Amino acid sequence: MTEVLQDIPFLATDRVEALLDIERHLITAQSTIERWFRGQWQRTPPPFYASVDLRNAGFKLAPVDTNLFSAGFNNLNPEFSPLYVSAIQHYLNQYYPGLERVLLIPENHTRNLFYLENVARLRELLELSGLEVRVGSLILDDRMAYNLPSGNLLLLEPLQRIGGRLTTAGFDAQLILLNNDLSGGVPEILEHLEQPVLPPLAAGWRNRRKSQHFAHYRAVAQELAEVIDIDPWLIDPVFRRCQGIDFMRSEGRECLVANVDAVLEITRERYAHYGIRQRPFVIVKADAGTYGMGIMTAYSGEEFLDLNRRERTRMAKSKEGLPVSDVFIQEGVYTFEQTAQEAVAEPVVYMIGQQVLGGFYRVHTERGRDENLNAPGAHFEPMAFGQTCVVPCRKSPPDAPVNRYYAYGVIARLALVAATREMADWRLQNALEVAQ
Amino acid sequence: MTEVLQDIPFLATDRVEALLDIERHLITAQSTIERWFRGQWQRTPPPFYASVDLRNAGFKLAPVDTNLFSAGFNNLNPEFSPLYVSAIQHYLNQYYPGLERVLLIPENHTRNLFYLENVARLRELLELSGLEVRVGSLILDDRMAYNLPSGNLLLLEPLQRIGGRLTTAGFDAQLILLNNDLSGGVPEILEHLEQPVLPPLAAGWRNRRKSQHFAHYRAVAQELAEVIDIDPWLIDPVFRRCQGIDFMRSEGRECLVANVDAVLEITRERYAHYGIRQRPFVIVKADAGTYGMGIMTAYSGEEFLDLNRRERTRMAKSKEGLPVSDVFIQEGVYTFEQTAQEAVAEPVVYMIGQQVLGGFYRVHTERGRDENLNAPGAHFEPMAFGQTCVVPCRKSPPDAPVNRYYAYGVIARLALVAATREMADWRLQNALEVAQ
Repeated sequence: MTEVLQDIPFLATDRVEALLDIERHLITAQSTIERWFRGQWQRTPPPFYASVDLRNAGFKLAPVDTNLFSAGFNNLNPEFSPLYVSAIQHYLNQYYPGLERVLLIPENHTRNLFYLENVARLRELLELSGLEVRVGSLILDDRMAYNLPSGNLLLLEPLQRIGGRLTTAGFDAQLILLNNDLSGGVPEILEHLEQPVLPPLAAGWRNRRKSQHFAHYRAVAQELAEVIDIDPWLIDPVFRRCQGIDFMRSEGRECLVANVDAVLEITRERYAHYGIRQRPFVIVKADAGTYGMGIMTAYSGEEFLDLNRRERTRMAKSKEGLPVSDVFIQEGVYTFEQTAQEAVAEPVVYMIGQQVLGGFYRVHTERGRDENLNAPGAHFEPMAFGQTCVVPCRKSPPDAPVNRYYAYGVIARLALVAATREMADWRLQNALEVAQ
Repeated sequence: MTEVLQDIPFLATDRVEALLDIERHLITAQSTIERWFRGQWQRTPPPFYASVDLRNAGFKLAPVDTNLFSAGFNNLNPEFSPLYVSAIQHYLNQYYPGLERVLLIPENHTRNLFYLENVARLRELLELSGLEVRVGSLILDDRMAYNLPSGNLLLLEPLQRIGGRLTTAGFDAQLILLNNDLSGGVPEILEHLEQPVLPPLAAGWRNRRKSQHFAHYRAVAQELAEVIDIDPWLIDPVFRRCQGIDFMRSEGRECLVANVDAVLEITRERYAHYGIRQRPFVIVKADAGTYGMGIMTAYSGEEFLDLNRRERTRMAKSKEGLPVSDVFIQEGVYTFEQTAQEAVAEPVVYMIGQQVLGGFYRVHTERGRDENLNAPGAHFEPMAFGQTCVVPCRKSPPDAPVNRYYAYGVIARLALVAATREMADWRLQNALEVAQ
């Protein structure tokens, strides 16, 4: 484990006092924080799994995206498998004590070996927890077996719908676990199932909005900031949104210009307050999930007055070619984590239920500190955390890796609380629809 | 981790087929077993912590003692700390979500540095889980700080009773955690407290009986044996008990002779059935907890007709000098685990809540395979498990360490289920007493 630690990214900034301050607050207030989280899970159960992209600017540590269909289980440190299995078992124990047979439905990327490794790893962890698992594909008509580079074997089977139940041949699934973010909408075969579906269909990106998530996150961050007495901005990215945007026809540009400038203005004021000399920026992206597509960095609202054709085309479409009309404008958070080879890195934290598992670094050798690193096609290498984010160490300095990871775990769990509140909104919405 | 694995004890026996058979059954039926356990915890919550002494004879794998005041947390592999912390957090989450401040009450061995290391480690794990912890001594009048060999600092503080609440100076404890097995009875200062006490006072050895535990264990083992279709004897030691024994006056010898012979007879029949050539033996011990005292190995009932004075004296008294009158006669289970140095070893498995944490080997260089290894004064060296008992591996053979540990985790959890049923008995008993 020591070897792993020596290689992890370090903070390439001299502006670490504020972050040390955040980390110190988090470690000192640990018992209050943990009790506060326990209170949250009492109110609303957490989703089955989630992963949170964080950005660590040294002076600010904040989530920039929360994924409810986590697709990098293969990137987690295999050394901590017992922790992952124990997290699944605790979740089952609490919410599905009678469960034995699970049907896992992955994305339709049947040729992406990295993604298939994730599916194989997830299936393995579920099996190690004592579940029987089949993997059912939304697009295959026949069984398909993959020999993966890791040596894992993955069998995809065609789905069968029998009345209100979804299954694969000869398998009586009791629960449907989605690892497919439903960007293209909910396929008919998944609708009105008798079996419970996790995450709920409403968590799909056709329905979910980043602005709703970050509105909840803002409230959650404020609550915790009060409890531990810090400026909530230090853990919360400012945001705005614009609706009815048509990038191709340049409709809605005024909204973009005004809101980009508004976010920059607030950021500028906070930077001045903390003596931060970096240039404020924003990240503009589709309000519905993107898979790293349709994302741009901007330094002023003006930039949206004269986007060139290439930029407009890039922003206009999201995953599965969906047109983008709602736009999310988020304060850019620099990432000052970098590897020994000076590649930019951002942490991704994984959770099952309320349990932080650890995570990995998304490392990009061709992108800057002010850019989205979740870029398709480009070279990125995951780097497993050397530790789990579960345990801080009071004897070590606040910037020791063990304590930095603990801070990551706290901020990721704040985003998880926000996600549970989003899910509660959907349940309410569903109940209202049923009542109509 | 690989280094640790190469050093662990191996099974020094050629009679491993039956055990491989047990392990194969356990791994094949894993999903059924895990679901069965989840059903058990739904009915009765597990104790906060427990540890189980196992004996592995190759042909038989069984618990021989279940401790509800586990005192070897310092012997667990520190590499898996996140798993231990996560187990505590899950327990709190489920049963004590509002908890922040815990008062830990250890044994009165204020000069046993090994024991104090256990207390320091337990306190550390509780703190890492986000609790504030104080350690309150039943016997000290002043604060006492220990610099332990591990480098840990342990502060013991005098207890204060204020009305119905127990605490140390300036600390408002919300829960009392006992690491003291109350062999000497329940001190007055612990009686009728407003705060919850874990484990309950009834779990103390003044009240608890091995025969009650193993009667529950027998039922639990039979239930699981049916579910996975094995002979329950392979995981359950036969036992009898005798009451009203006075070793010094040689009273009750007839009961001992008859029951020792009865246990041996059943064992002999099973040995013959499985073609086992070892000589059957029994372990005779106090029915109330012993701390390794007052334990003897016997090969026939006759041996109890002419115990010499030294043997009678040794058997007559238990921990804290308590006279032994109820005697527990348990089928002896050979331990065929031995270290590379040919020392005899037996596994001890630790749990918090329903979560198996892993364990360690109790290694004794001066004792035989048919003797109790929990012997005070003699040389014993704990050896941390290289793995956690959480995760089996279907790709490895059933006797691979990872799978042997999984089997240990299953059998230890059976004993844990038996302990939860014992605790339910005490609650019932309490309720009846209150109702009178």
